[in-house]
Amino acid sequence: MDWLDEVKWDAQGLVPVIAQEAASDDVLMFAWMNREALQKTAELGRAVYFSRSRAKLWFKGEESGHVQSVHEIRLDCDSDVVLLKVTQQGHDPSIACHTGRHSCFFQRYEQGDWKTVEPVLKDPASIYR
Amino acid sequence: MDWLDEVKWDAQGLVPVIAQEAASDDVLMFAWMNREALQKTAELGRAVYFSRSRAKLWFKGEESGHVQSVHEIRLDCDSDVVLLKVTQQGHDPSIACHTGRHSCFFQRYEQGDWKTVEPVLKDPASIYR
Repeated sequence: MDWLDEVKWDAQGLVPVIAQEAASDDVLMFAWMNREALQKTAELGRAVYFSRSRAKLWFKGEESGHVQSVHEIRLDCDSDVVLLKVTQQGHDPSIACHTGRHSCFFQRYEQGDWKTVEPVLKDPASIYR
Repeated sequence: MDWLDEVKWDAQGLVPVIAQEAASDDVLMFAWMNREALQKTAELGRAVYFSRSRAKLWFKGEESGHVQSVHEIRLDCDSDVVLLKVTQQGHDPSIACHTGRHSCFFQRYEQGDWKTVEPVLKDPASIYR
């Protein structure tokens, strides 16, 4: 059986994907893949997602240069969630988030509110020209 | 504005949730929350998910004893994904997966196939009595 057939794609043909930085173990971002995106990710060794808003493949870093090299692809116990171990390329310290921050998970719950707890490392206006 | 209103719930009223072990930074599991689950999680300081298959709140560890203490609740840039930093209770070494493994992400892609690369730490039959 094809390894791609073992993934339990949802009704939209997608699977949720978590990207974790290999060196730091930080969770960088969350996105979605369709079958073609996962196949390309394995083939190219770089993260290729499926953009639900644009309804097409999204080669992470295609505009920003913030490419993710993929070291490991993991699948969970129900075969319906993917975890990538990546090296986040393109900036030092690394930037995965379109807001110019290291990680997308920069809002922390504190006493009934969300606080922004990570700095912008680079102005998004200069990332996306 | 209520912090729960700032979360972008999907069409089913849910949000995807990643649970990461605070001490090891290992990604343990992926699940879903509805509004009540997230509220309870913040209130109780333990992970409460929404079981889509059973269509009700799932107090993680209610059967297994493998409760997750929650240290941090994070929200991503689009406010539609939650990341929990947890301590996985109930067994040493810790077990988050219903298969008796440390993490749910125990299948690794290798040359066109998924290989199981993490051991069962405890027989699930003795976890769920």
